[in-house]
Amino acid sequence: MNLSGRNLISTLDLSPEEVRGLIDSARALKAGEKEARLAGRVAALVFFNPSVRTRISCESAMARYGGSAIAVQPGKDTWNFECGEGVVMDGNTQEHVRELAPVITRMCHFVGIRKSELITVGSAQGAATGSYDELAKDEFLHRFMEFAEVPVVNLESNRWHPMQSLADSTTIVERLGKPEKKKYVLTWTWHPKSLPVATPHSQLMSAVNLGMDVTVLRPEGYGLEPEVMRLARERVEALGGSLQETDDQEAAYKDADVVCAKAWGSLDYYGRFEQEAIDKAPLRDDWIVDEEKMAKTGDGIFLHCLPVRRNIVVTDGVLDGRHSAVKDEAENRLWTAAAVFDALAPK
Amino acid sequence: MNLSGRNLISTLDLSPEEVRGLIDSARALKAGEKEARLAGRVAALVFFNPSVRTRISCESAMARYGGSAIAVQPGKDTWNFECGEGVVMDGNTQEHVRELAPVITRMCHFVGIRKSELITVGSAQGAATGSYDELAKDEFLHRFMEFAEVPVVNLESNRWHPMQSLADSTTIVERLGKPEKKKYVLTWTWHPKSLPVATPHSQLMSAVNLGMDVTVLRPEGYGLEPEVMRLARERVEALGGSLQETDDQEAAYKDADVVCAKAWGSLDYYGRFEQEAIDKAPLRDDWIVDEEKMAKTGDGIFLHCLPVRRNIVVTDGVLDGRHSAVKDEAENRLWTAAAVFDALAPK
Amino acid sequence: MNLSGRNLISTLDLSPEEVRGLIDSARALKAGEKEARLAGRVAALVFFNPSVRTRISCESAMARYGGSAIAVQPGKDTWNFECGEGVVMDGNTQEHVRELAPVITRMCHFVGIRKSELITVGSAQGAATGSYDELAKDEFLHRFMEFAEVPVVNLESNRWHPMQSLADSTTIVERLGKPEKKKYVLTWTWHPKSLPVATPHSQLMSAVNLGMDVTVLRPEGYGLEPEVMRLARERVEALGGSLQETDDQEAAYKDADVVCAKAWGSLDYYGRFEQEAIDKAPLRDDWIVDEEKMAKTGDGIFLHCLPVRRNIVVTDGVLDGRHSAVKDEAENRLWTAAAVFDALAPK
Repeated sequence: MNLSGRNLISTLDLSPEEVRGLIDSARALKAGEKEARLAGRVAALVFFNPSVRTRISCESAMARYGGSAIAVQPGKDTWNFECGEGVVMDGNTQEHVRELAPVITRMCHFVGIRKSELITVGSAQGAATGSYDELAKDEFLHRFMEFAEVPVVNLESNRWHPMQSLADSTTIVERLGKPEKKKYVLTWTWHPKSLPVATPHSQLMSAVNLGMDVTVLRPEGYGLEPEVMRLARERVEALGGSLQETDDQEAAYKDADVVCAKAWGSLDYYGRFEQEAIDKAPLRDDWIVDEEKMAKTGDGIFLHCLPVRRNIVVTDGVLDGRHSAVKDEAENRLWTAAAVFDALAPK
Repeated sequence: MNLSGRNLISTLDLSPEEVRGLIDSARALKAGEKEARLAGRVAALVFFNPSVRTRISCESAMARYGGSAIAVQPGKDTWNFECGEGVVMDGNTQEHVRELAPVITRMCHFVGIRKSELITVGSAQGAATGSYDELAKDEFLHRFMEFAEVPVVNLESNRWHPMQSLADSTTIVERLGKPEKKKYVLTWTWHPKSLPVATPHSQLMSAVNLGMDVTVLRPEGYGLEPEVMRLARERVEALGGSLQETDDQEAAYKDADVVCAKAWGSLDYYGRFEQEAIDKAPLRDDWIVDEEKMAKTGDGIFLHCLPVRRNIVVTDGVLDGRHSAVKDEAENRLWTAAAVFDALAPK
Repeated sequence: MNLSGRNLISTLDLSPEEVRGLIDSARALKAGEKEARLAGRVAALVFFNPSVRTRISCESAMARYGGSAIAVQPGKDTWNFECGEGVVMDGNTQEHVRELAPVITRMCHFVGIRKSELITVGSAQGAATGSYDELAKDEFLHRFMEFAEVPVVNLESNRWHPMQSLADSTTIVERLGKPEKKKYVLTWTWHPKSLPVATPHSQLMSAVNLGMDVTVLRPEGYGLEPEVMRLARERVEALGGSLQETDDQEAAYKDADVVCAKAWGSLDYYGRFEQEAIDKAPLRDDWIVDEEKMAKTGDGIFLHCLPVRRNIVVTDGVLDGRHSAVKDEAENRLWTAAAVFDALAPK
């Protein structure tokens, strides 16, 4: 795989062949059949939001092959960047992305950026900091990329989380062999918080990129971003798979080969999180993934990006049972990260 | 030394021969007589409590030999883990140790964990967050270990701090040559705070593991955990050393070969820190280690794990004098860490 | 360059020949004509103040050549060090520099320290924590150095920022070829905050060390520290350059070869930041670097240490124009850091 000098904002930046190339590369690295060419290479990882597994997977990927990663956690409050043109910077922004991007990218070989206004930590619900449409533009990330001089990798933005997408695709290929035309279900689940949509958007693409028959299973009012659905549909049609949305759990689980569970907030409610919590309360018991539902699948595997709230999103029985592939999925974050950095490196 | 695949929660996990093997390995590394086999290996170091010297010693140990460490400082408030079985996770825990442990351990070759409810930072006294008996179970650490797929090293729990123990043992061997039957005194000292017992427990073991004649010198009511004393006594008897407790400073210092000073809180007072501070005030002046006391020893060396409050725990004269081995003791944290990771690595 | 075992507090610790040696080494590293000998070497980087570019430049410099850096961010509140002699440490200091320095320096090959009471983050103006004369002593740094056992590099103190100085010198040599007797202008600019003087002090030296004709352009009352000016003048005289101060912008810009812009607080106002803000308001419009002023130079280059507030310190036109060397200047932080660590390493 040679993606030398490219950026990775979502897997839509990659052709389906390139996605398959990265999966093959990740599996070869995992099997010890090849080494990533990362010796002496340095990745700066800029985390505006906290991260554990993304950070460890990227750092470990670099370190195993003689490279290195520098994780920077600026803190949203103390490091404010300007993205606007012609601005007189007498307010609370201290640095313009026109300087920041070249400075960091002159010092490193790759830059990873996690910047989501939608991620919150702990039990607190986030405050809405703009309209969803505005946030979905991922302005900082795109502006950074514009002035960057080395490849930029999105480590989760408001809209996309491509590293999760690639790890999920890799796990599906590992387990299913040939996933084309097999049935993939992305099921919404209830959660006490209104979680971001970047991960379900990218999980959707993990199956779309493999030419699967994809079902997005969610209650009315919990659809993913319409433009993301449109982009997915475009790719589905090109690849010969299918894509449908439904709230019929019975039909969705039936004969599924993959069930991927994820909680996310309703875009219709965006910013009205307390009201959403009240209105979605009745959905709690009905939308958990349990053994009874999994029994309806075609001996399907279970995926979740983790962390997961047990017995809320999915039961202990499913998570600890033989269909669960969540540990492999997490481990594959490491190998896909190594494959991505290897592919982006200058040749 | 081959401890491949083992965990290190306390030095009781090691036979006395294995302790000696690690000491020999640390000394050989220090002397440049061998290299640790850590190239391409990655250690995740998870610090629930702040750390400076533990972090630097472990990171530097990995880095010198071509490996790498990833220090993660999750912060107690933002990353709450569930350890219970069958729990419906609708509260403030976001991830179960059944997922956390496999995820981290699939990405790295070793995991170090510091998690102590008893450590506080700055001048603040901690709040009691449970009974001592409950905390001494180190539940998170043991549950993590249960689901981990690579070796787990305790970087200080509520009960044990094995890396300090090994560094102290190494320093004693360096200075005394053959420590068997030589006199080791672990002396309690006054301190404005009620400090944790993990370090004195492990310092006790540092001498016990070497077959020394061990005296725990402390005022009435400041004994170490009875079960730890029982375990120490078992090993003492097997090795042919001895173990006694006393509050007689005159007798304890007499002819001592090693004086190790440490402040710790009374378990009898656990959770009543303000009352303890009032009641222990009269002990302040009498329990400092000073030159007069050290003159009674048999030209004994002085140990302290650092950081130390000068002229509170020990006088300037002792710390800066020729008997002080505290700098070597700190440096040996580096070499023993390298020896431990080298021994735990897959062969 | 061999500076084995030396410290670097300011470029006054180096002879002008040694400064030139480091510049040559940085340029050779940048050109790929040599490799820094840093394999297996570890730098501890202690940041009492936040850092992005200093941290990334130093970490990347070590990592590229097989070394490693450990960035420690202790936080001013939780890790208080004692520097005094004979102190009874029953207050809020937990560790004496007499222990801290040997402990860290026994574990690593270099130590970098950033400790400035004058740096603030975000929009907040700092509180004055002592007289400027007291702060300018950089007591902690000097005491640390006294007890350190490996080279100590100043990563910005209250008075000096030598790594910025060397990057600026390197950029000047890159752009001008032979800078001797060429005209360098360090111009004060308006800024909403009262910024530290360590950087302008070190930028002044970046030109002085090259034997340039140096002008410090600033309004009345905004002179740099008199003792720094005296030290600069001494070196200027030895090297055959010149040094003057003025508030005449017309004359200063005329035929300049280098214009370096920097905002800094008035030492006369030190600690009276609100009053300074009021009194300096009229200077805002007149002291910005704009294209009209740059047109008066002798096709001069523009330098700024970054981050920079656009259209406050300098206009978009200058920053984005062909005379701007700020990206190269930032990149040179990387190569000069590598040159410094290479030179300080044991041979």
